[in-house]
Amino acid sequence: MTYDIDNIFAKILRGDLPCHKLYEDEATFVFMDIMPRADGHCLIIPKTACRNLLDASAEQLSAVIATTQKMAQAVMAAFEADGVTVQQFNEAAGGQEVFHLHFHVLPRHEGDRLRPPGQMADQAVLAEQAEKIRAVLAQV
Amino acid sequence: MTYDIDNIFAKILRGDLPCHKLYEDEATFVFMDIMPRADGHCLIIPKTACRNLLDASAEQLSAVIATTQKMAQAVMAAFEADGVTVQQFNEAAGGQEVFHLHFHVLPRHEGDRLRPPGQMADQAVLAEQAEKIRAVLAQV
Repeated sequence: MTYDIDNIFAKILRGDLPCHKLYEDEATFVFMDIMPRADGHCLIIPKTACRNLLDASAEQLSAVIATTQKMAQAVMAAFEADGVTVQQFNEAAGGQEVFHLHFHVLPRHEGDRLRPPGQMADQAVLAEQAEKIRAVLAQV
Repeated sequence: MTYDIDNIFAKILRGDLPCHKLYEDEATFVFMDIMPRADGHCLIIPKTACRNLLDASAEQLSAVIATTQKMAQAVMAAFEADGVTVQQFNEAAGGQEVFHLHFHVLPRHEGDRLRPPGQMADQAVLAEQAEKIRAVLAQV
């Protein structure tokens, strides 16, 4: 399996496609999922190329999981969530649709259900949710 | 939120409860999920106490994600899988049932569906699947 340098997330990293950016550091980048399965659903990716968990380096994984934790804590506060579900898909059979390693962070509330996949969110709603998350991150 | 030293995974780590062990190193431990949602469904945990992603240390996370990668690669080979789904649940609302940090690794095949949660597996089947995974790990 190879890495396609023209996958959507590579284009977002290069600034060739827009996103609702939440956070970045030297090694990782975070933005809103445009087909959120819960309010505040965000994606954590490494800035460097790898297809998924199967070919990632130890450095990429350590950086991405640290930022995943940071975002899990941030969305708990931003959405007064009761829990967080983390998903990470590898290859099409594993549920992967964009072939650049990514972790999904989904804020959860008691008794909620994840929305079905594939539903595009309203951009204004995403922008508002992104602002809430960035506000929490700015306080840390 | 606190850590309950009598949770099921703490008991497995202490040897007070049996498991189908697949792997261990200094920091992590891996065993078969007894309610597998796919053949080869296994769980990766840190050997030290933490409740979930929200309170884990950077060292615990780095170790657990490295072993999660190792197991994803191993189950791909052991079950001739086409992909791997990783799930990690935090707090009851996030899907967590045992309150010791764990990552689920599920081998996937094109067109399969995950089995519904909560179905106990046959112990002999789990033992056989565990043996297949250990055989792959022994070759690495």
